[in-house]
Amino acid sequence: MTISATISQLDTYCREVANRAKVAAREMANLSTSVKNRWLLHAADSLVAQERALLDANELDLSKADEYGLTPAERERLKLTSERIVQIATGLREVAALADPVGEVIEGSRRPNGLEIQKTRVPLGVLFFIYESRPNVTADAAAIAIKSGNAIILRGGKEAIHSSQTITETLRSSARSCELPLDALQMVATTDREAVGHFLKMSDAIDLVIPRGGEALIRRVVAEATMPVLKHYDGNCHVYVDKQADLDMAIRIVENSKCQRMGVCNAMESLLVHRDVAPTFLHRLHDQLAKYNIEYRGDERCSKILADTVPATEADWSREYLGPIMSVKIVDSLDEAIDHIEKYSSRHTESIVTNCIQTADRFVREVDSAAVMINASTRFNDGGQLGMGAEIGISTDKFHARGPCGLRELTTYKFIVRGDGHIRTS
Amino acid sequence: MTISATISQLDTYCREVANRAKVAAREMANLSTSVKNRWLLHAADSLVAQERALLDANELDLSKADEYGLTPAERERLKLTSERIVQIATGLREVAALADPVGEVIEGSRRPNGLEIQKTRVPLGVLFFIYESRPNVTADAAAIAIKSGNAIILRGGKEAIHSSQTITETLRSSARSCELPLDALQMVATTDREAVGHFLKMSDAIDLVIPRGGEALIRRVVAEATMPVLKHYDGNCHVYVDKQADLDMAIRIVENSKCQRMGVCNAMESLLVHRDVAPTFLHRLHDQLAKYNIEYRGDERCSKILADTVPATEADWSREYLGPIMSVKIVDSLDEAIDHIEKYSSRHTESIVTNCIQTADRFVREVDSAAVMINASTRFNDGGQLGMGAEIGISTDKFHARGPCGLRELTTYKFIVRGDGHIRTS
Repeated sequence: MTISATISQLDTYCREVANRAKVAAREMANLSTSVKNRWLLHAADSLVAQERALLDANELDLSKADEYGLTPAERERLKLTSERIVQIATGLREVAALADPVGEVIEGSRRPNGLEIQKTRVPLGVLFFIYESRPNVTADAAAIAIKSGNAIILRGGKEAIHSSQTITETLRSSARSCELPLDALQMVATTDREAVGHFLKMSDAIDLVIPRGGEALIRRVVAEATMPVLKHYDGNCHVYVDKQADLDMAIRIVENSKCQRMGVCNAMESLLVHRDVAPTFLHRLHDQLAKYNIEYRGDERCSKILADTVPATEADWSREYLGPIMSVKIVDSLDEAIDHIEKYSSRHTESIVTNCIQTADRFVREVDSAAVMINASTRFNDGGQLGMGAEIGISTDKFHARGPCGLRELTTYKFIVRGDGHIRTS
Repeated sequence: MTISATISQLDTYCREVANRAKVAAREMANLSTSVKNRWLLHAADSLVAQERALLDANELDLSKADEYGLTPAERERLKLTSERIVQIATGLREVAALADPVGEVIEGSRRPNGLEIQKTRVPLGVLFFIYESRPNVTADAAAIAIKSGNAIILRGGKEAIHSSQTITETLRSSARSCELPLDALQMVATTDREAVGHFLKMSDAIDLVIPRGGEALIRRVVAEATMPVLKHYDGNCHVYVDKQADLDMAIRIVENSKCQRMGVCNAMESLLVHRDVAPTFLHRLHDQLAKYNIEYRGDERCSKILADTVPATEADWSREYLGPIMSVKIVDSLDEAIDHIEKYSSRHTESIVTNCIQTADRFVREVDSAAVMINASTRFNDGGQLGMGAEIGISTDKFHARGPCGLRELTTYKFIVRGDGHIRTS
């Protein structure tokens, strides 16, 4: 779907979208929880009721999958079914059940002079969300943004544009029914890449941009954005099997971290093994993972243990494979493991398997990543698994929000100060 | 103080400083509260003991004040005295008394599957702090950065460089005595502006840049920085006197907001008055402020009330005067006041004077600024006044930290997840 427009018209169109979002955001900030929840429940019902329209739109997208060169996995993610529509609706109902973060008094105090201070949670304002081909993301992102009191501008990829547009129209139609500001939820009516550039310049109207997709997209957004960006580039996640690990547990955790879903950001990509347990552990792991056809890219010591080791290059230590490959390094000590992680990790998720409390404690303190696991799979770095409810993304930055980002991470706060004619004397 | 160096050597020097800070930050993150406090108290004593050296260094700076064209006010801020050195030492002792934010468990839960989640506060890492001519800022910033577990690179202005260097050397000498990592506290050994540019490129080593100074400096930093920036450009703060205001209180609050200290970011710059009370209020205010020689830049209606009104231009509504000038606008309604603030405010601090609870409530909800005051002076937007203790700056951004930034605002968090062989099954 494109609008035929010269660049200058596109600029005007993008500005209008952003300005409408900004006006809606002011209204959203003061909207009651009940209106937001009513919309979420209404939208859930509407999506199920609109199944036919959604499947038709999705059919249109699927018919272009070859033209866009989608892989079988991408095509699978793009596909809507009755069951998936029900899942999307269930997601909206789950967001309705989450606590509304807006208005929460984070801290409050009465000063000795009688001044009352409330640090109160408020929405960020306008979000610009850029994503690729999974149509369910349209509904998820809209739900999280609006429940947290923000307006959102959705910019979906061309591969799913008909599905995403139809979902958006359904959600907006529910907004109209529920008296939620219509412009709190807008989808950019073009997949022209130029449009993204226009929005990224509007720091006066857009408070946060959230890009979800490949690393190239995210690097482009970071380079061009004039407002904060919530993102991670990749997830080069490590599991370190310590010399004091329970090896049965270690095998279970490595298998789950690497193989439960290979294409996700919290999957293990790099395995570190203490030299004392390396021969036993690697042979057993190799047997256990035989069914997955894993390629092991290892250092020299790994090659001596596993005959089918492919020699790892320097680049391998930083790679996010997202498939049946893992890098393997044998280390002499906890220090070497931590130093390796410090050097190569993308600071997303690292896990240690050990029975030694001191070792676990040092790993947790010294590894500087969004989530650090002890005796648990890296796959637990996920908003739902960590008890936060729905997430709009995972941040590997340290500023504002780190790790899974849900409702609260899409808010800021203001200081509300109540006096009775208070003036400062010093 | 300059180092003679070609640009390529300067680049190498800056890189070494940043790398040393990065190594120190890893050690700092795990330093006990007692070591940090011991350093603060030792440093406080040392500064007082080094009075002679500090005054001598300050004398050197003051001798160049003419050469650098400092105004009398700037010269006054630059000057150290015995009393001011004692104040700086007291500031360090106050930071020692504040709670250590590092290690705080912000949220914790045990999931139904037995997984234990702790969202734990950790330092940001390496801070790059750029500031201008007040030497006390050197000690304040170092204290806040180190108490919050960070390493800091200080880049002071040339006007106070000898004072700042001597303070830094004293603080580092205390670090050596207290076994605090020496490189957690470094001052850039050149005031060459090129050095700032080099540091701003090092997002791999520096986690946050905090510029304090004029708007031109801050805009340069924002334009060049590849890491997050904690800042405010200016403070165009408003007081709105509502039709239901207690006019005695309103006069007290406007006088305090505008006149207690005119050169600071939380001083009032723009006055909004409801038309119903404007004639009475403005005449009384004019009398009360006569001693300050205020220039009133007003709209047409203001001119009809105050004969000495200077007609305000469009630019006046956005101006931060930092001196005896205020802009004055008569508004017809609360809505007009809020719209005006929305359009022109720098989102730092706004205050309403009113006895109407509904009006106050709408003002607080709809004004999107870091601090919103009811019946209190704008001057209360300050870390100490809000009960946060020392502050390293005030943020008008919404991302990460908003308003005064103290110890906690210089931290992030990580998720620590403890399992017992937990793997994901869905």
